[in-house]
Amino acid sequence: MSSLPMSPTAILLIDCPDQKGLVATISGLLYAHSANILHADQHVDAKAGLFFMRLEWALNDFRMEEFQREFSSIAASLKLRWRLQLSSSKPSVAILVSHYPHCLADLLHRYRAHELACTIPLIISNHSDMEPLARFYEVPFHHIPVISGDKVAAEMAQLKLLEQHRVDLIVLARYMQVLSSDFVARYPGRIINVHHSFLPAFTGAKPYHGAFARGVKLIGATSHYVTDILDDGPIIEQDVTRISHRDQLENLIEKGRDLERLVLARAVRWHIEGRILRYANKTVIFD
Amino acid sequence: MSSLPMSPTAILLIDCPDQKGLVATISGLLYAHSANILHADQHVDAKAGLFFMRLEWALNDFRMEEFQREFSSIAASLKLRWRLQLSSSKPSVAILVSHYPHCLADLLHRYRAHELACTIPLIISNHSDMEPLARFYEVPFHHIPVISGDKVAAEMAQLKLLEQHRVDLIVLARYMQVLSSDFVARYPGRIINVHHSFLPAFTGAKPYHGAFARGVKLIGATSHYVTDILDDGPIIEQDVTRISHRDQLENLIEKGRDLERLVLARAVRWHIEGRILRYANKTVIFD
Amino acid sequence: MSSLPMSPTAILLIDCPDQKGLVATISGLLYAHSANILHADQHVDAKAGLFFMRLEWALNDFRMEEFQREFSSIAASLKLRWRLQLSSSKPSVAILVSHYPHCLADLLHRYRAHELACTIPLIISNHSDMEPLARFYEVPFHHIPVISGDKVAAEMAQLKLLEQHRVDLIVLARYMQVLSSDFVARYPGRIINVHHSFLPAFTGAKPYHGAFARGVKLIGATSHYVTDILDDGPIIEQDVTRISHRDQLENLIEKGRDLERLVLARAVRWHIEGRILRYANKTVIFD
Amino acid sequence: MSSLPMSPTAILLIDCPDQKGLVATISGLLYAHSANILHADQHVDAKAGLFFMRLEWALNDFRMEEFQREFSSIAASLKLRWRLQLSSSKPSVAILVSHYPHCLADLLHRYRAHELACTIPLIISNHSDMEPLARFYEVPFHHIPVISGDKVAAEMAQLKLLEQHRVDLIVLARYMQVLSSDFVARYPGRIINVHHSFLPAFTGAKPYHGAFARGVKLIGATSHYVTDILDDGPIIEQDVTRISHRDQLENLIEKGRDLERLVLARAVRWHIEGRILRYANKTVIFD
Repeated sequence: MSSLPMSPTAILLIDCPDQKGLVATISGLLYAHSANILHADQHVDAKAGLFFMRLEWALNDFRMEEFQREFSSIAASLKLRWRLQLSSSKPSVAILVSHYPHCLADLLHRYRAHELACTIPLIISNHSDMEPLARFYEVPFHHIPVISGDKVAAEMAQLKLLEQHRVDLIVLARYMQVLSSDFVARYPGRIINVHHSFLPAFTGAKPYHGAFARGVKLIGATSHYVTDILDDGPIIEQDVTRISHRDQLENLIEKGRDLERLVLARAVRWHIEGRILRYANKTVIFD
Repeated sequence: MSSLPMSPTAILLIDCPDQKGLVATISGLLYAHSANILHADQHVDAKAGLFFMRLEWALNDFRMEEFQREFSSIAASLKLRWRLQLSSSKPSVAILVSHYPHCLADLLHRYRAHELACTIPLIISNHSDMEPLARFYEVPFHHIPVISGDKVAAEMAQLKLLEQHRVDLIVLARYMQVLSSDFVARYPGRIINVHHSFLPAFTGAKPYHGAFARGVKLIGATSHYVTDILDDGPIIEQDVTRISHRDQLENLIEKGRDLERLVLARAVRWHIEGRILRYANKTVIFD
Repeated sequence: MSSLPMSPTAILLIDCPDQKGLVATISGLLYAHSANILHADQHVDAKAGLFFMRLEWALNDFRMEEFQREFSSIAASLKLRWRLQLSSSKPSVAILVSHYPHCLADLLHRYRAHELACTIPLIISNHSDMEPLARFYEVPFHHIPVISGDKVAAEMAQLKLLEQHRVDLIVLARYMQVLSSDFVARYPGRIINVHHSFLPAFTGAKPYHGAFARGVKLIGATSHYVTDILDDGPIIEQDVTRISHRDQLENLIEKGRDLERLVLARAVRWHIEGRILRYANKTVIFD
Repeated sequence: MSSLPMSPTAILLIDCPDQKGLVATISGLLYAHSANILHADQHVDAKAGLFFMRLEWALNDFRMEEFQREFSSIAASLKLRWRLQLSSSKPSVAILVSHYPHCLADLLHRYRAHELACTIPLIISNHSDMEPLARFYEVPFHHIPVISGDKVAAEMAQLKLLEQHRVDLIVLARYMQVLSSDFVARYPGRIINVHHSFLPAFTGAKPYHGAFARGVKLIGATSHYVTDILDDGPIIEQDVTRISHRDQLENLIEKGRDLERLVLARAVRWHIEGRILRYANKTVIFD
């Protein structure tokens, strides 16, 4: 995994039906423009007939506009799905949170420690408890209560804020409300959630209770993109930790917190760094 | 975890409603008999109000019969559920297997390497492929085909053999037939299975296919006691390994094999060494 | 592992040469005082001839003074080394830190989330960067610069503060100064450090540089008690994470931070909860 | 990681100073020959200025000789270091072993389970214990005793056999003799050893004793290429497992065996499948 790049770079993500000559064509074009490639990773899913590629190159002296014009025309003729991202234009990330502070505190700490190459223009919460934490890290905090039975109003207020701040990615840092289909449809592949179980085990509410009752020997956490179906979106990252019969429900919850922080932080970082491609309800992670 | 004891030991497992003075009474009795305690482990599930204990002591000069007489009478008055096991009387283990050799080969290798303090008087298979492997490790092999639609006959033949050999534990080393309720009822808490998923995710057939389709980032394996309900018995051990988008279904299956071997071998060993207590469809593992 | 106890408890730690009847005597005494034992764990190192025990019981209605009087006299006659700790009297913990915020931020977050049953009356640093973080978490911050060539003066100022606050445990949260032997001798077994390698590999300065140069496939972190010899004290906890050829030195440092936080937080918690016994430059961890 | 390819493939490994246009040139040539690329992975070590690449493509209809001729001339002009390997010509692997059976049994089991795409024409041992195991798996066994003080004679006999069988890779499956510099020089980068510690901790003899004495909380195993300096060659794979104060030395040795088998098997497989490039006493692993 690459650290935050020192000098500006461009990242090109490609995702298309596999066809011969893709690498030759794309790398040929970059060579013609004297690109200094820093990272290149590709993947072919032979069964699905799909091609995935991530390229990162240094921008000094690179004539981006010219390249982009030529590449667009090639991409159109080859029917590529692609995305070009410049490290200089940092994505704008909003965090939604409820009562639990651990994921929020972790993300804000990493943000200030320059581990996350984004801006975080706002935090939205249905409660006000997290306001001091937001203030300490100097991120504007918006309290939008969700009145029982009227989630629509709250979501409209949220969406208005998200649009005002031209938010690219929404992170649900243990946000305890289920988003409506309409909301999700506005940000396809751009909402990341953390679920406190090793999905697909223990979907829905109270997964630690479920894990405790089932007597599992490892508990897990999962970060994933949010889709219409609860806890069913493409999985980005998972991790587990060992428990024993000595662990009571409270211990599962405590140990799980450390997992939740890690898998969410990794997912956010990978998304920001353009390392994730979604397909077939799965993810390709270019590390 | 203790290695195989050099000199003969006794293992006492206790499992009963919690009550004051249990440790004092039992340890007092052992002290009165000059027991040299090697390992002692206990656990209280305060919510369930249950007490669990495992004691292991050296047998040299220990007057077992006298102790057993006194202990039985105390146990009766305190309503203890208990089991006394001597390291000198090795449990008799039968292995049931189908086509896949990896778990069987692993168990037999550990058996001959003295990692498993048991005898293995027989292997039963619904196929004949594993016969040479059994012969190499000098374990009698019985081929009992399971004719489609007549599982009853096969199970009767199996049960007859198991009784002849006074089998204490049945290990399903990737045995691909579902045992009948009648069969399971004959060996309650004495049949160990390995399931090739991280239970409770992906129960039933083809769990690697399920994991691949869901796009999980870790695959797992689970060893558990067999109960009436498929893949639902008390979990003994679980482990996971990381996979990526580069792993195809075949790679999941291959990587999973290494997990299956390990979680099954650990479960068998812990059972043999009297380290497992079952309760509430869970296990206490005294390590 | 037990969560923070709801109601007040007593914890008794015993560490002595093994002898018959220890468990019987101690549990008998507790029974005579009607103790409600919540957790009991013991360990015998047969080769070293040592006995270790941790007992935790509920204090409601328990006549502690009477017990303590009787136990002291028994302990003296049996030559036990022991320590009695009440959950009601929380240990006082000082954190020493330099420039890196990750371990400090993590400990303070856990402290405020009630994961650590201690008080943290002060943070001492040779730099002033961490003052805002300390202020946010409402812990007094003391800036004691270490002037090159005059560590003695700084240590005297530190010791004065530590004594004023009757500090029970000193946590080096990436504190980048080596403590003098005199300092260490004042707090034997009461200073916990985190070293950013998998000890004993890569002792001393710049362990990530060493790991990168050696081409290891896993990096680690270690929490340990501080002794006279650098990076040589009893290991409390270790953990590792996988790296690959794609990881540059910066990535090792970043990934390592997550390990450092975890292994240090676990060590501090276990110490506070009376779960650690030291012997033979090792630790027994009662989980 | 790719499973064993169904149809014949070619694998091209390139390792050279980084220069612009490498990917474009090589992928352009493959495209000109209508190669159907199955896997492509590359890595640039920007600091070291090095470029690494692994390409695998299907051979049906591919005119290899023509490609090879053209590629050789390009490679010469670009000063590439490269290796071309056909899946149809399986490498020839010799296993050297002493008394411990676990790594040998594991490798032979995987060999027969088609996990290793090689031939194993011979096993050489300084003892005769492993002969029955070799016979069961139908691999010729050669007993070459190493007479104390005359390792030279034994190595000469070993080398003669290895040359007769045109061995490509030598696997030391817990072979307990240190190979001479002369021997190692004959097979540079083609001898894989497993060391029973988490290198660079506990080099040399009796690493489990060292780990036990130091009181580590995790033990490890390492597979690496053999060089002139003991336990110092490029690390291929490492793994660890958790231990506790309850584990005695024997338990470390037993738990470690499972690690040794895994890290050695992975290393052998990756070498066979052309996934490893060595540089700067490290390895690049293309997974």
